Amino acid sequence: MEKWRASHRFLRYSSTKSFDLRSKPISEQATCNSSFCFARNERREWKFGNCLSSSREKRGYLGSSAERGIRNEVGFQVRCFGSATSLIQRNPSFSTLNTDDINYFKGLVGEKNVIQDEDRLLTANTDWMHKYRGSSKLLLQPRTTEEVAQILKYCNSRCLAVVPQGGNTGLVGGSVPVFDEVIINLGLMNNIVSFDKVSGILVCEAGCILENLITFLDTQGFIMPLDLGAKGSCQIGGNVSTNAGGLRLVRYGSLHGTVLGLEAVLANGDVLDMLGTLRKDNTGYDLKHLFIGSEGSLGIVTRVSILTPPKLSSVNLAFLACNDYFSCQKLLVEAKRKLGEILSAFEFLDNLAMDLVLNHLEGVRNPLPPFLHNFYVLIETTGSHESYDREKLEAFLLHAMEVGLISDGALAQDINQASSFWHIREGLPEALMKAGAVYKYDLSLPIEKMYDLVEEMRTRLGALAKVVAFGHLGDGNLHLNISAPQYEEKILAQIEPFVYEWTSKHRGSISAEHGLGLMKATEIFYSKSTNTVQLMAFIKKLLDPRGILNPYKVLPHSLSS
Amino acid sequence: MEKWRASHRFLRYSSTKSFDLRSKPISEQATCNSSFCFARNERREWKFGNCLSSSREKRGYLGSSAERGIRNEVGFQVRCFGSATSLIQRNPSFSTLNTDDINYFKGLVGEKNVIQDEDRLLTANTDWMHKYRGSSKLLLQPRTTEEVAQILKYCNSRCLAVVPQGGNTGLVGGSVPVFDEVIINLGLMNNIVSFDKVSGILVCEAGCILENLITFLDTQGFIMPLDLGAKGSCQIGGNVSTNAGGLRLVRYGSLHGTVLGLEAVLANGDVLDMLGTLRKDNTGYDLKHLFIGSEGSLGIVTRVSILTPPKLSSVNLAFLACNDYFSCQKLLVEAKRKLGEILSAFEFLDNLAMDLVLNHLEGVRNPLPPFLHNFYVLIETTGSHESYDREKLEAFLLHAMEVGLISDGALAQDINQASSFWHIREGLPEALMKAGAVYKYDLSLPIEKMYDLVEEMRTRLGALAKVVAFGHLGDGNLHLNISAPQYEEKILAQIEPFVYEWTSKHRGSISAEHGLGLMKATEIFYSKSTNTVQLMAFIKKLLDPRGILNPYKVLPHSLSS
Repeated sequence: MEKWRASHRFLRYSSTKSFDLRSKPISEQATCNSSFCFARNERREWKFGNCLSSSREKRGYLGSSAERGIRNEVGFQVRCFGSATSLIQRNPSFSTLNTDDINYFKGLVGEKNVIQDEDRLLTANTDWMHKYRGSSKLLLQPRTTEEVAQILKYCNSRCLAVVPQGGNTGLVGGSVPVFDEVIINLGLMNNIVSFDKVSGILVCEAGCILENLITFLDTQGFIMPLDLGAKGSCQIGGNVSTNAGGLRLVRYGSLHGTVLGLEAVLANGDVLDMLGTLRKDNTGYDLKHLFIGSEGSLGIVTRVSILTPPKLSSVNLAFLACNDYFSCQKLLVEAKRKLGEILSAFEFLDNLAMDLVLNHLEGVRNPLPPFLHNFYVLIETTGSHESYDREKLEAFLLHAMEVGLISDGALAQDINQASSFWHIREGLPEALMKAGAVYKYDLSLPIEKMYDLVEEMRTRLGALAKVVAFGHLGDGNLHLNISAPQYEEKILAQIEPFVYEWTSKHRGSISAEHGLGLMKATEIFYSKSTNTVQLMAFIKKLLDPRGILNPYKVLPHSLSS
Repeated sequence: MEKWRASHRFLRYSSTKSFDLRSKPISEQATCNSSFCFARNERREWKFGNCLSSSREKRGYLGSSAERGIRNEVGFQVRCFGSATSLIQRNPSFSTLNTDDINYFKGLVGEKNVIQDEDRLLTANTDWMHKYRGSSKLLLQPRTTEEVAQILKYCNSRCLAVVPQGGNTGLVGGSVPVFDEVIINLGLMNNIVSFDKVSGILVCEAGCILENLITFLDTQGFIMPLDLGAKGSCQIGGNVSTNAGGLRLVRYGSLHGTVLGLEAVLANGDVLDMLGTLRKDNTGYDLKHLFIGSEGSLGIVTRVSILTPPKLSSVNLAFLACNDYFSCQKLLVEAKRKLGEILSAFEFLDNLAMDLVLNHLEGVRNPLPPFLHNFYVLIETTGSHESYDREKLEAFLLHAMEVGLISDGALAQDINQASSFWHIREGLPEALMKAGAVYKYDLSLPIEKMYDLVEEMRTRLGALAKVVAFGHLGDGNLHLNISAPQYEEKILAQIEPFVYEWTSKHRGSISAEHGLGLMKATEIFYSKSTNTVQLMAFIKKLLDPRGILNPYKVLPHSLSS
């Protein structure tokens, strides 16, 4: 105990006030919350690290061999950095827009919701990393499920391809057109339909921004079961369609568990009402799960019913240092057992990740003395009793220090300190982009094997690039980032397909939470068996026979078109 | 505080020893654990309340109008009490068994695993409530996935219908043949494949009995995320195929959240390997969910990967009395907020249910003084710190008593007392059967509306029958039981379709956790929209084109055949 207290670095905070450590006023987000907001603010300037083109480079760009290109047939360039996506041809069976189509849509959703403005389209055509860019000439903003249904019915009859779009914060090119698909943006469907304070069940439209739902629930004494860095922009329909993971999954589980129902519009315009508000319902096949994580390729989610947990009053956050990965792993096992029901986050980063944040993000301070440890872990607890929770966490940390699992640490003493701890973890994507070129991989792996991949990758790359690792250790989710001054073919050749093969060999997933989108559609076989993929393709064909919904994504083009 | 202490009825127990309040030695189960075990032990005598026929009544029984019959074309009678199932004809496209078939199966799985013994078939042909009875002439016991695959491939080619069977503890006629379907019992596939103590992920074969898994995990310091009265007989494959709910759902959520992967064999013998052992995997459509809760009608689950929570050392159980339903409901809201992360069960029963248990089950004692309260609630907490958890629960109960939410209560002081409390709740199905005829309904309803149905039903039935209510209040799951001296048409006419219409009107589910099976296949439209059911039928057709898997169940026969 004395050893622990003697460090003087373990301060603490706990409050009975209702707050969310990661909820910041929007004005603060651009500088301190997440790279998602940063990118969004910066989008109009088309700056992205030191490698991507400006908006002026609209035509004729063929890309280096390290930037494998997809030639957009209507004259636009989509590039995929660090992916194995091969050249895709626009599906010739899709129609192209004509003035009759535009007039039909104007009649349906109103002139102001038929967007043809070049600047707005450029934003909607480009993903937030500026890695993928389509050339859609039309963005529609339906206001109701019925309008979505009418749009799809029309597009299906005309064989016009569409891409559903929420906050466009995805990382795998799933939410932007590949060619000239019509963009259907759900942003105007942002109403909360109902909230039941007895059961905690929220029903809302798909276009609700996650952070707005968090804010609304806070006034009701509840929280959302998911939280993401992108919460200021991402929409719940997109979260559900991509089965978003995030920081609370270790506590509240995946959306397959917390989404109780949804409404989805099929390609032919049929509305599937599966908007149950029940915790339990065993009446037939639970088809809503087909739409959770199918990235808008089976239908457009228009409403969601979600089970929200009560907001608990006591939150604690510790920032810890470990000497080796095995200690991080053992600390997780101990935390699950000893903190058990109050554990709400278990994140890790390695020393290269810490170094990157300290060097590239302004205002970031290492909570621990300025010599580098090998690993850092954030442990958050959320519970209903301030003093019990605090004592429990302190006892746990004391024991962990005594047995050598942690070498140093700090307990946040107030909300500002907690925010600064979280900023280290959440600021990593932004720091990576500022550092130069980055090859990003989002992998699920058996926890005990996870860091072996990082070390093997370092051996493979040597001095060519830095291998930076962080992620949701509690969920076995590694964010593997290869950071280099610039994109180079020889770097990519060392990474792929090795990273996918290694993951597959260890029965991991090549996409833990980001989805497949365009980036990894052709890599699906690394994580799924052939006949499982074949069955996916049959289901795609059943629900979207003409293949108009988010084409070229999720499944290999040869199977889904 | 004084008021609370003065009652002298609030005793307490808590133990650092690792135990499960509801895990009893098998020898004790027949008398104290659940009616499932009781029925299983008694099955061979064919006794069931005071209404069902003996095994000698094999032919020619047409049933009263209150016992709507399904005429089994091969000379056997299946009866459905209190269901709206109409007469079903055996699907004429199905073949009938011949000696070549028997010889093929003997060659495949070995002579001893091809069961034709009349007594054993009689058991497998009859559900545990003795409400449904098929006339299968063949039960197969495969030992491997490959054998299941070969069996199905053969049956599909011959158009032989099959019924997958686990522990046969279902309540809606889903696990027994309707006519002469070949029974495929998974009981011999009962190996634990792997267990990862870091992640808590268990992989096992489908035939593992739930209680055996609970016992195994106990030795590893983990628990199963589901617990049922039928655990001594039911198998994990059946649990997953029926999306079993049970007593821990309020804490650990549904199997859609905790099952991480599965292996399933399709009707044509194709093996779908979706046996992921990852907490997160967003690579394509998450098809495993199609098999969770589809009652064996889309494929046979052969292996399961499941996330198991660490076993926590501190368990407390309170048996409480409330004056009215509103107080029960308010108590739930308070418990979710104040007990929050340690709440592990919230069950309720009304005074008629208590009366029934006290009058019909031997050795049951009311933990509270012998005057009837209107409602009783069981609250269980499970956490990682004995004294904190106990103090938290006591403070919660004290406050609840002070504000009048509870009128009396007792805290279990040891494992025996806790078991006796649980026996009141878990003994209800057995007590109901002993009391006479029983019409059983398993409904999900908005919690605030749930008891209105009970009261309306009492008004409708008057002196004709007793309306007994209990269930998983924490999940909004009402077990509505109508108890009468004998089955009568006029009683049924008062119950159905009213109970389904009322449930549908309030956007409830006509099957919260039992599934649809044969009993409610035709009632699906009360809980699901027409085009959702139509899509289910398309998916059934896609995965099982000849309709051989568990026919006549889940979907209306007209759609699934």
